[in-house]
Amino acid sequence: MTTIENPTRNGVDTATLFATIDAVKNNTDIAKFQFRATNKWISGTHNQSTIHGFFGAMQEMEHQQGWTFNADHPAVLVGTDNGPTPVEYLLHALAACLTAGIANVAAARGVNLTEVESTVEGDIDLVGILGLATEAQPARNGYEQIRVSFKLRGDTPENLRKVVEQSRSRSAVYDVLTNGTPVHIDIDAG
Amino acid sequence: MTTIENPTRNGVDTATLFATIDAVKNNTDIAKFQFRATNKWISGTHNQSTIHGFFGAMQEMEHQQGWTFNADHPAVLVGTDNGPTPVEYLLHALAACLTAGIANVAAARGVNLTEVESTVEGDIDLVGILGLATEAQPARNGYEQIRVSFKLRGDTPENLRKVVEQSRSRSAVYDVLTNGTPVHIDIDAG
Repeated sequence: MTTIENPTRNGVDTATLFATIDAVKNNTDIAKFQFRATNKWISGTHNQSTIHGFFGAMQEMEHQQGWTFNADHPAVLVGTDNGPTPVEYLLHALAACLTAGIANVAAARGVNLTEVESTVEGDIDLVGILGLATEAQPARNGYEQIRVSFKLRGDTPENLRKVVEQSRSRSAVYDVLTNGTPVHIDIDAG
Repeated sequence: MTTIENPTRNGVDTATLFATIDAVKNNTDIAKFQFRATNKWISGTHNQSTIHGFFGAMQEMEHQQGWTFNADHPAVLVGTDNGPTPVEYLLHALAACLTAGIANVAAARGVNLTEVESTVEGDIDLVGILGLATEAQPARNGYEQIRVSFKLRGDTPENLRKVVEQSRSRSAVYDVLTNGTPVHIDIDAG
């Protein structure tokens, strides 16, 4: 049994968090999730994704609402700038995943947070995607490197650093971005 | 010199696309980009990223506007459902990148598009991030597998399939998600 002094800390309902972990221990099928997005091409590099339903806890579920996100290229990359580029969404996903993990880990450990901010930068040499990489100037298609800078306040520097490290070691997005995931593509071309 | 029958196809300004490629051939420094996102923790698993400025074409640039995106966990994952989960944004980024590439490649090849839709699914076993993976039930933190299903119309099935394949082979997000990227984390813990 876990002793809980403060059932809500840093906005995390720790009682429910521990109860969820206990429930998964008893039936790990609860933890098998499938997330989804649907995308529709608008024009040129502008397209839109919708995120609403998912599978989890052994049933079809839905978020409280559906969300639609635009993606596009800026004018300098021959787009119409109706939304961020797809690669910018990766940086948001990484910051969001590490930050949610920081909040959960801190709450579970009784570490206080008053401020968590981060900046994520990704370096990319577009000669890769433009098909202009050469032996003299090799380039991959994706980011060469991503850097995350966190600023945290609310507890001792040592406690805060350990929380970030534990969040990193349990982050789904960090794992996918650093280790990769198999991607399969099916095509219905009429 | 590239002969262009139709300078705009599928909403892509092909004349500017080819001119951009020629410009990069002459000075590859133009192609060195840095994208950025800043994130702020709100409460619990809810946080917000802003995307606005970036570096490219040898100068600091900005999108026409800044965009803010919420991320959160749904109630079943002990969050407040104020936005998609971070891992759902990865699926959006993948669909958006492949679709933008499809539009560009099709335009460059004179292939017509009338419809491009996709669904992306990602399978994840949350025993990984919950720290409950065992030897008997191993699980990574991130997606085990991602599947993209495209529906395309507007040209011959063969042409459409080749366009998707070329987009995949030049997609920045596909590259990062399948091959991984080094991620460095700095911490300012007061």
